[in-house]
Amino acid sequence: MTEHYEVYKKYKKRVDEVLAGAITKKHPETLYEPMRYILNSGGKRIRPMLVISCCEACGGKMEDALNASVAIELLHNFTLVHDDIMDNADKRRGMETIHKKWNQNVAILCGDLLIGVAYLYLLKTKSGKLNEIINIFTEGVIEVCEGQGYDKEFEKRDDVTLYEYKMMISKKTAKMLETSAVVGALCAGAGDEKISSIRQYAANIGIAFQIQDDLLDINADGSELGKNIGGDLVEGKKTYLLLKAIEVINDKQDKSKIENIVYQQGLKSGNMKDILEIKNIYNKYGIIESAKKEIEHYTGLADECLNTIPDGVYKERLRWFSEMLMGRSF
Amino acid sequence: MTEHYEVYKKYKKRVDEVLAGAITKKHPETLYEPMRYILNSGGKRIRPMLVISCCEACGGKMEDALNASVAIELLHNFTLVHDDIMDNADKRRGMETIHKKWNQNVAILCGDLLIGVAYLYLLKTKSGKLNEIINIFTEGVIEVCEGQGYDKEFEKRDDVTLYEYKMMISKKTAKMLETSAVVGALCAGAGDEKISSIRQYAANIGIAFQIQDDLLDINADGSELGKNIGGDLVEGKKTYLLLKAIEVINDKQDKSKIENIVYQQGLKSGNMKDILEIKNIYNKYGIIESAKKEIEHYTGLADECLNTIPDGVYKERLRWFSEMLMGRSF
Repeated sequence: MTEHYEVYKKYKKRVDEVLAGAITKKHPETLYEPMRYILNSGGKRIRPMLVISCCEACGGKMEDALNASVAIELLHNFTLVHDDIMDNADKRRGMETIHKKWNQNVAILCGDLLIGVAYLYLLKTKSGKLNEIINIFTEGVIEVCEGQGYDKEFEKRDDVTLYEYKMMISKKTAKMLETSAVVGALCAGAGDEKISSIRQYAANIGIAFQIQDDLLDINADGSELGKNIGGDLVEGKKTYLLLKAIEVINDKQDKSKIENIVYQQGLKSGNMKDILEIKNIYNKYGIIESAKKEIEHYTGLADECLNTIPDGVYKERLRWFSEMLMGRSF
Repeated sequence: MTEHYEVYKKYKKRVDEVLAGAITKKHPETLYEPMRYILNSGGKRIRPMLVISCCEACGGKMEDALNASVAIELLHNFTLVHDDIMDNADKRRGMETIHKKWNQNVAILCGDLLIGVAYLYLLKTKSGKLNEIINIFTEGVIEVCEGQGYDKEFEKRDDVTLYEYKMMISKKTAKMLETSAVVGALCAGAGDEKISSIRQYAANIGIAFQIQDDLLDINADGSELGKNIGGDLVEGKKTYLLLKAIEVINDKQDKSKIENIVYQQGLKSGNMKDILEIKNIYNKYGIIESAKKEIEHYTGLADECLNTIPDGVYKERLRWFSEMLMGRSF
């Protein structure tokens, strides 16, 4: 456990070193300053770690996947910057979001630039499978946009099902982890069988990761989370918890409190009292427990997918990685 | 002349056919519907024509460059969608802009998707030089963002020089034409010498093209232009005409009218009377004439760059292409 964490810290440091090289440009200032700001805002570099770990699990070396892992982190940051505009979010990682600190135009352009620079780093990858890598990466860009599109559409709909929710998070969240994992495996020159394992491992982790995210929005400590508690409720996001609550609650009064969030497209006032009331309803009907079980279920599935990966330290690290993700409190 | 125009129409039709294949997806609706809308809004497909013509001038065939030419058009449309948000533009090609017809979030996400789909089409290109092509394309994405960043910064500055203006338009406008041309040449497998010629040809056309754009903003017929006359003045854009006027006008009253646009970051009222007054000042001091001479100068330079391209119909078509661009009234 501690050994894996030490490796994670070591790799994170290397990733940060390479990332630092992406933000040395000074002009135009309104473009590169916000880019530096978001990349220096204390990201956990989870996706680069997944790229590198999957590369190693398929027989490659950390350096083979380093530029690609940085490309994935840049792409991830593009989604953060643009999603924060669309969600009108004030805070990210405890800091002001770019569109609040500068303005919306700066944030749009900074996100666009991050996509370009992401490809630039991807193209630095030395691999006979570079074209496949760029293809997978591009598929990732497209599906992440589709996922975000569904997420925004769902905010305005009152009949979203849990089935649709899972389709949406497969694209919005899981696809980026899947892309990270497959790109890592390709950097190691992995064949179809291993790639398929790695892909499914990451897709399952991705689902668990998003449900965990939904759970943390209501169940975490705000200062740890780096943003306001209950933000999803205020925005009217269709989370696992909200949809599950609609499915299981029969009591008229409690159900109507939940449904009002749906019909009003978000908590009307959004103050802490309302948010805590919803949290109590979630607790009362076992919604929090149900989310935790879902997370365990998908983490378990992820583990099972690793059957084609040879036993050893790298496989153990992938198991540690999913446990670490699900144990996070922010 | 007519023969080249016939070829242009034929190629435009092929480009439109391939583009139609990019927009067959139905869901999420708020993503693919605006994408269909912008791609069906009557673009002239100038950049795809440049890709294909440069491919042919370097010995390739139209089909070699077709997917790449569609990728360039998709990328160009991404810049239109995002720039229109940033410039708060209401109309484009005579139609409502996406952020006005839908909303801003839809426009942000639609632009992002266009980048992804652009790469998808680029990757369909069958060429031994695919990695170089993707590299050039990616450089293009980054520089276009930088150009737009400078353009927005310049709106807020009162000391922009003509030198800085040319640097900005080299990135914002000329780079996309340069990228089109070099990608086309690479699709034909061209060597360094030809690529260098083609690159400089397109870079010069790009400068002429933007000055022409600046000129049309004040000098065109609004219905032909597909957007409102004088939009650049209203937004406080640092155009060639505005910067040249500041440079040459000494008369106190006329100079202060021009400088007020700069200091107020745009025409305060933006009504037709004010716009026509500025146009009269431009005419009085030969600013319109000066812009026309600049356009001729850069078009001439572009022609001279074609010295490494063998004489014949394809070279003539590149000459026709730049004349056609500069003769446009919209």
